[in-house]
Amino acid sequence: MPDSVRVIPLGGVGEVGKNMLAVEYGNEILLLDCGLAFPEEDMLGVDLLIPDIQYLLKSRKRIVAYCISHGHEDHIGALPYILRDIDAPIYATPLTRGLIEVKLKEANLLQSARLRTYKDGDVVKIGKFTVEPFHVTHSIPDAVGLAITCPVGTIVYTGDFKFDPTPVDGKQANYGLIAQIGRRGVLTLLSDCVHVETKGHTPSEQVVGDTFRRVFAEAKGRIIIATFASLIARVQQIINVAAEYGRKVAVVGRSLESNVAMARELGYLDPKDGTLVPLHQLRKEDADRSVLIVTGSQGEPTSVLNRIANQDYRHVKIVPGDTVIISATPIPGNETAVSRIINNLFALGADVIYSAIDTVHVSGHASSEELRLMLNLVRPKYVVPVHGEMRHLVMYKRLAMSVGIPEDHILIPENGAIMEFSKEQARIVEVYPNNMVYVDGISVGDVDHVVLRDRKLLSRDGMVIVVVGIDRNDGSILAGPDIISRGFLYAGEDDNLLEEAKELVSNSIRHQEESPPPPEWSWAHRKIKDILGEFLYKRTGRRPMILPVVMEI
Amino acid sequence: MPDSVRVIPLGGVGEVGKNMLAVEYGNEILLLDCGLAFPEEDMLGVDLLIPDIQYLLKSRKRIVAYCISHGHEDHIGALPYILRDIDAPIYATPLTRGLIEVKLKEANLLQSARLRTYKDGDVVKIGKFTVEPFHVTHSIPDAVGLAITCPVGTIVYTGDFKFDPTPVDGKQANYGLIAQIGRRGVLTLLSDCVHVETKGHTPSEQVVGDTFRRVFAEAKGRIIIATFASLIARVQQIINVAAEYGRKVAVVGRSLESNVAMARELGYLDPKDGTLVPLHQLRKEDADRSVLIVTGSQGEPTSVLNRIANQDYRHVKIVPGDTVIISATPIPGNETAVSRIINNLFALGADVIYSAIDTVHVSGHASSEELRLMLNLVRPKYVVPVHGEMRHLVMYKRLAMSVGIPEDHILIPENGAIMEFSKEQARIVEVYPNNMVYVDGISVGDVDHVVLRDRKLLSRDGMVIVVVGIDRNDGSILAGPDIISRGFLYAGEDDNLLEEAKELVSNSIRHQEESPPPPEWSWAHRKIKDILGEFLYKRTGRRPMILPVVMEI
Repeated sequence: MPDSVRVIPLGGVGEVGKNMLAVEYGNEILLLDCGLAFPEEDMLGVDLLIPDIQYLLKSRKRIVAYCISHGHEDHIGALPYILRDIDAPIYATPLTRGLIEVKLKEANLLQSARLRTYKDGDVVKIGKFTVEPFHVTHSIPDAVGLAITCPVGTIVYTGDFKFDPTPVDGKQANYGLIAQIGRRGVLTLLSDCVHVETKGHTPSEQVVGDTFRRVFAEAKGRIIIATFASLIARVQQIINVAAEYGRKVAVVGRSLESNVAMARELGYLDPKDGTLVPLHQLRKEDADRSVLIVTGSQGEPTSVLNRIANQDYRHVKIVPGDTVIISATPIPGNETAVSRIINNLFALGADVIYSAIDTVHVSGHASSEELRLMLNLVRPKYVVPVHGEMRHLVMYKRLAMSVGIPEDHILIPENGAIMEFSKEQARIVEVYPNNMVYVDGISVGDVDHVVLRDRKLLSRDGMVIVVVGIDRNDGSILAGPDIISRGFLYAGEDDNLLEEAKELVSNSIRHQEESPPPPEWSWAHRKIKDILGEFLYKRTGRRPMILPVVMEI
Repeated sequence: MPDSVRVIPLGGVGEVGKNMLAVEYGNEILLLDCGLAFPEEDMLGVDLLIPDIQYLLKSRKRIVAYCISHGHEDHIGALPYILRDIDAPIYATPLTRGLIEVKLKEANLLQSARLRTYKDGDVVKIGKFTVEPFHVTHSIPDAVGLAITCPVGTIVYTGDFKFDPTPVDGKQANYGLIAQIGRRGVLTLLSDCVHVETKGHTPSEQVVGDTFRRVFAEAKGRIIIATFASLIARVQQIINVAAEYGRKVAVVGRSLESNVAMARELGYLDPKDGTLVPLHQLRKEDADRSVLIVTGSQGEPTSVLNRIANQDYRHVKIVPGDTVIISATPIPGNETAVSRIINNLFALGADVIYSAIDTVHVSGHASSEELRLMLNLVRPKYVVPVHGEMRHLVMYKRLAMSVGIPEDHILIPENGAIMEFSKEQARIVEVYPNNMVYVDGISVGDVDHVVLRDRKLLSRDGMVIVVVGIDRNDGSILAGPDIISRGFLYAGEDDNLLEEAKELVSNSIRHQEESPPPPEWSWAHRKIKDILGEFLYKRTGRRPMILPVVMEI
């Protein structure tokens, strides 16, 4: 019997998003979560990033299950891509399973997928593993952490969590079960750490409810609230407060509508006796009895909120007296887009309440004291921070040391790191290559830096194409040169520039006509690039990509 | 004698940056500041934005002076561009003048520029205007606000300010003079408003000094501090604390070095008896006696800090034990770049102190209580918020109403708005067209949406060029089709794709050969675009820009 268990992060360490871990004991592998990430700003045109599963492909047959912690994109979003390569049963809580089903249905994978339900308190045998989900609070209902026991010991995976003493659905984290698992003895804790920089305790969702109450009490007209499509708990809160103030609520936006419908169906959303109504019905209500919940809290261009702010949404026109609440904090990179929406809404006469001026959102992740509480309940021998950038991992290490975990019992992995835990020691055995895997259109593959570099070059100063037809026998110019540019020349800027450039190219090639024609025309490519590059830079201060096309005729 | 005075913002309202205002009385115009802005994320490849001075060009001769409030880029940065069109004397305080001189020298404009010095407490006659600079605290020394008096009344322009009771250089705002100007009676206050969303009082620069003291007391090795090149006060603070702890300080980075040299020369920086030393001398000191001040607090790619974090800076290599302080808050849009640097530094073994975990930076702008204090000292009849996005302008309006300014005495302008103030009323007479003016390479002009749209398209899915040579007589294909792509196909992706595309293009054109050749080949362009666009989308899910080049031979 092997005396060690291995844990390999395939995504989600050293970065935020695309969370996925493999737990390997003997010849069995259990996968924890399977999320996606949004590309960084410099990955121009890339749609999504997903975990690199290269490590798993050689041992596909040994994979016994996916165990999912909760239904956010960064924990389930890569399933439609990875399930094609790795088919295994998927365990999830009822709401999470519902969200996965929506996703797999869109990808035409629902028929073949093997979905299983587990819930807080269950004890599930999967191969040699025993998996025990325990309820945690997060910004989506039905989130669990997992205790995974194999003969070497128990590994506790927190998933995303915070300890909210007053959650919207009234279901606190299962402190008792977590403590009991801790008392039984835990080998390794894999802990969420992304909010470690914030000291103290993350405010309860209740605080947002208090803000809503204040705003609802004062608002004279319609109230429009933008939030994340997955924030079912926030939707419930809005419905609750609306019911108190005699307002009706409608949700608008495809993803929000389908999530809300699914959550209702599964009993995770209480529509409060007719408070939640369809949009067409809400429009019959007076403004001061109406609440709209819309998508677009991150400034997404096609979202309902953005279209409302741009006066481009037929069903909802802003009028003075409207109150708009943006119930989210802009994710880094989205600030400008969100700010633009706020400005436009103000310009249309709305009153706008947003994170900079009121508590309209709280994080779903544990702050320092909650992370310490988890450590103290679980009392693990070894600790590994997951779900965070390097800075979060390092900060978490310090935090774990502050509650008495010895420094050499804390591992800071990178994606692909094969961590081995035995009763005697914890160590990183080796690091399996782990690449950035993109989804761009329908292609999935390793991120290709040539493509991204070219897109970046093109985005800066555009491009100039030079086409010239050359006699394959004597090198004389038969056609062109023609010059076409895109994204390079501003209207009205130096009209003669391209004409002069043509002249220049003509002369530079013609000059060579006296010499015997070389066997191939790569010299002409080089020459056109150099001469034209220099000329255009001198005249415009810009360096477009220059693409010479020399056709031999 | 005219009974009204006009104020026209040419930049800096409804946006942050490129601050510039015109004050017009009778046939004289006074310009307040002349700043630049950095382009928004979707203005791909644009270097800078500057105020639109179209309004001024017809009345160039009437412009009597530029009056500058302080030396930050968003207040002086457009001078090298606009001075070429509008030549007028430039008034500035000594440090600000020094910074302008550095800038004009680089642009070869220093010889012809007419620079004048004014300072706190001066009373300067400029045409029919009397200009009185009053000292304010900000994140750069020698900042002033301006009281501009003409026969209609006094306009007070705050510039950028906060009320720091304990500034690093010990020079508080000139409360007395501001109050005195207020008691004389003020027609209009033009107030900074960008930090209005923050309640209370912006912390004093002193607080940052306290953080430095705490970090210096604990640091065992070298300390590296990144900050803005213009934050001379921060540099002074670091030198002060270093002197207390027996460390030497060197500055690295071109802009920082030249600003520090200039500030020293003008007496705005006290090097504390040999605490400030050149880099080569610092390198002889032990690590625990060294402090480096570097550029790159915003994650700028070519900055010293970024190069250090990428192990790409020969003179400074990070070793475990180094402490790095990033003494700035990331400006929206820069979070990812800054975060990447922090992660890299942690990975190299440094301890990193940054804004999310400690008070290493404070804003240079007034929070709500300071804005109220300014209103109460100046006691203006009319109020106009400037230097802010729409949301800041609206918030400021509410704040002004809270201290008793009637709603109809507060104007919210847009760039180009011609505001007219008389003893009886304040109103926006008309809005002169005001465009986004870009600087891209050496070109200056109105932002051209075609160019930006093309750059955006190119940045998403790259481009595909199809070149084909056609016989001008019978339409038969003489050369090609050749297909070249950039930023479109990932390595290893569908090798046959372009070959198939060539075939497709060939067939689609050849098909037409039977029909008599049309007089021109635009049909071929259209056809290639459509057929190829559809084919490539079906195969890749992406939509590159397709550029057909049909050469008649």
